[in-house]
This record gives sequence, C-alpha cells and structure tokens, in this order.
Amino acid sequence: MIKQGKLYGIGIGPGDPELLTIKAVKALGKADVIYVPKSKEQTSTALHIVKEYLSKDAVIEPLEFPMARDLQIRLSSRKHNAEIITKELEKGKTVVFLTLGDPMLYSTYSYVLEYLDAKYDVETIPGIYSFSAISSLLSLPLCKGDEKLSVISSFDEHTPQLIRHTDTIVFMKVSAYYKQLYNFLKEHTEYQFVMITDAGKSEQKIYNSIEVLQDKVPYFSTVIVQKQIVLNTKKLKICQV
Amino acid sequence: MIKQGKLYGIGIGPGDPELLTIKAVKALGKADVIYVPKSKEQTSTALHIVKEYLSKDAVIEPLEFPMARDLQIRLSSRKHNAEIITKELEKGKTVVFLTLGDPMLYSTYSYVLEYLDAKYDVETIPGIYSFSAISSLLSLPLCKGDEKLSVISSFDEHTPQLIRHTDTIVFMKVSAYYKQLYNFLKEHTEYQFVMITDAGKSEQKIYNSIEVLQDKVPYFSTVIVQKQIVLNTKKLKICQV
Repeated sequence: MIKQGKLYGIGIGPGDPELLTIKAVKALGKADVIYVPKSKEQTSTALHIVKEYLSKDAVIEPLEFPMARDLQIRLSSRKHNAEIITKELEKGKTVVFLTLGDPMLYSTYSYVLEYLDAKYDVETIPGIYSFSAISSLLSLPLCKGDEKLSVISSFDEHTPQLIRHTDTIVFMKVSAYYKQLYNFLKEHTEYQFVMITDAGKSEQKIYNSIEVLQDKVPYFSTVIVQKQIVLNTKKLKICQV
Repeated sequence: MIKQGKLYGIGIGPGDPELLTIKAVKALGKADVIYVPKSKEQTSTALHIVKEYLSKDAVIEPLEFPMARDLQIRLSSRKHNAEIITKELEKGKTVVFLTLGDPMLYSTYSYVLEYLDAKYDVETIPGIYSFSAISSLLSLPLCKGDEKLSVISSFDEHTPQLIRHTDTIVFMKVSAYYKQLYNFLKEHTEYQFVMITDAGKSEQKIYNSIEVLQDKVPYFSTVIVQKQIVLNTKKLKICQV
C-alpha cells in the first residue's frame, strides 16, 4: 500500500529565514518535492529562506505562472500546475508549495488549490506578512485602539475612498502603480509616508519622502501611509531622494 | 561593567506554539524576565504558547493595563509599566514583552514603547496575526489579484463605507460590537459571513450564519466578510445556530 500524499502550502515570510515558523520548518524537513513559483524576483529569495531546512533528498521544482493579460492562459497554467502537484500526491509524496509572505494573501497557491481535488490531504501554514515584519522593523504600530487598517495592491477609483475611511494603509506591490500613488499623495498632503524596499535584505532602503515615487521603485517595495508617522531616526537610516 | 539590557517585543501568534517563529524562540530562550499583559482571557493563552521555550530561571511577571474609560488612568499605567521594564533594562537584563498575535497590531506593547527612553536596545519580532492563521485554517484566501483587505476592531460611522470599498473585511474583537455587526449584516444580505471562535484551540467553533451574533460571542472571535465565501464543508465542521 502506498502512503498517502500530502500537500503543505507554506508561508515562508518576507525574507529572513528566522521568521519561519516552527510548523513551517517541520513541514519543510519532511518534503519530498518543493514547488516554488518561478519569478526572477521571488524564486531566489524563497529558496534562500528555506534552504537550510530542506532534507538533502528534496527536489526543488519551479512552477511557471505566466502573468499574461489573457485570463485563459493564466487559468490553464494554474490547472496545469495543479495537475503536476496531483501526480506527486498520487505517488504518495509529501509536497510543499512555497509562498513568500503568506499563502492566503496575494498568493498563486490559492489559485492552485481551486484546481486540486478536495480528496487530497492539504495543510496550509500561515507566514509572516511583509508589512507585519516592516511595522516591527520600523517600530511603527499599524493599529492602536479602534484604528482601522487597509491593505491594497493596486490603485483604482475606490482607493481614495478607502484611504479616507481608514487609519493605516499598506500599499503592496507598489512598483505596479507608483505613479498613481505619487499623484494622490502629492495632492493629499494630510498624509505621511514611509516606503521600504527590500526589507530585511542587505540592500534594504527606507524613504520618507514621496518624491522617491517619481521614478520606478524596486519590486519588493511597500508603502505605509498614516496621518502621522513617527520614525526613530536615531536608529533608522532614512535615505534622501 | 554591567552588560547592556535589551527588550524584545515578541509576537507569539494566535495560540498554536508551533506558529512561533524561530526568531521568537531564540529570544525567549535568552529572556531573564518575561512580561505578559494581565488579562483573564489572554494571559494563560500566552503562557501556554511560550512555556516550553523559556529558560528555567526566567521570571514571569504579569503587567496590569486597566481598560479604564479614563484616559489618564490608561496613560499612567502605560508609563508605570514602562518604568518597571526600564528598571530591569538598567540592571542589564534581557526582557521580553509578549503579545498574542503581533506586537504592532492592537497591542499594548506599542503604548509601552512610547514611554521607553530611545537609548535602550529594543528589538520587535513580528508574529502571525490571528486572522492570518484563520484564513489558512479555513483555506479562505483573504486577497487574490487586485483585491483589497480591511482589518477593523470596532464598528463606527465609517465602517459601512470601508466595507463598501473593500473585498475582504476582517472583524477582530467582535465581542465588543457583535450587535452592530449583526444589524449591518442583517440589512446587507449581499455579504457572506464566517466566524471562528477560539481558533486553533480544542474549543474552536466555526459558524457561517450571522444569527450566531444575536448572542454575546466569546472573547477570541473573528469574523470574515466577503461577497462570496466558499468553505470546504467536507473538511470543516460548521456549527449550526
């Protein structure tokens, strides 16, 4: 009798291997096959985070998720990747799908789950969000008391309303809409701004002037906007623009 | 020469000791004194999470943060607690302040930091938010693609607007405003609902009917609202109301 396969969807946090959870480390150590979305920005960071926790026999397989405008292409790649995973589960393998940050927030993992037969044993392990690590790094509380937090990854016609009705706004994937964000903040001077790029890595940079948004920003850039942002400038190195 | 004291503010996640990060476990092992906010709901959960990672000489000290309506009382208790921590830092102790979930989201830790002299060495370690663990447990993505997430802990006149402009709303600390939330959802039948109480504990319960909000809900209750919520009812036990 073949042992039953199991899929772990693992959130591996934003970049520091020590921000892995104990649960994630245990699952990584059991994995036969490790799938990681193939992306020039993300794959190497993901493998750097997990490498010391993998068993020496683990096989690492990048999965392609094309960012095509054509929805059909995106859907068929998700289905195809779910089939690849299914084959390994049918062989009784322990399979891991890695997600930077968390598997339930802006992750391709959730798309793959939609195509996976419900009969398979699946365990999803949460990870530290990038903005959670950033708020600790900056000593910047996201919410106190009754405050409200919003998290967005695009800028559309609803965004100004959302900003108006919330206290802290986290902008993820800013490189896709930095110009719109710049125009908004230029007009709305009641908001204060901090941007962190490549948080936790050696090339990390912190900015508190919106003028940094005049030029294209790195892929791993996160902006936090509040009415009042107090940064400990004695301990944090703020880059001038 | 006395060794320099250090304060770690540690997010210990929602309840499962395996959701501690490696960084948190390392800091816990070095701690001379562990401070934990005193609360009948939270203190025992926090100590359960960390107990196996503490050194045997570590001293555990609950700190009182009265929930008084009088702001002056709240402010003076924060200042007083910062003074208690300062005394230990002056002795060169390694001090830990525990926060369920994350230290930068609705935590008394951020209030204490405001009263701590900036000269002290402070490291804040992020933790898994309760709603992050819940989304993994339910296999319920919080955001896909361009979707927006809001996180709130109260219900006021801005809340309906915020809900209208967002895709996923996480309601934390629901026991404080379950009646307002019930009235809103009763009128706005376009939203679907899931509530989880005591997530990850043996007494965990999952509900998908808003009628559960007719009666007072447990302290550890989190609601997620989306236009469409699909739960795997073969794997999740949904409680009837």
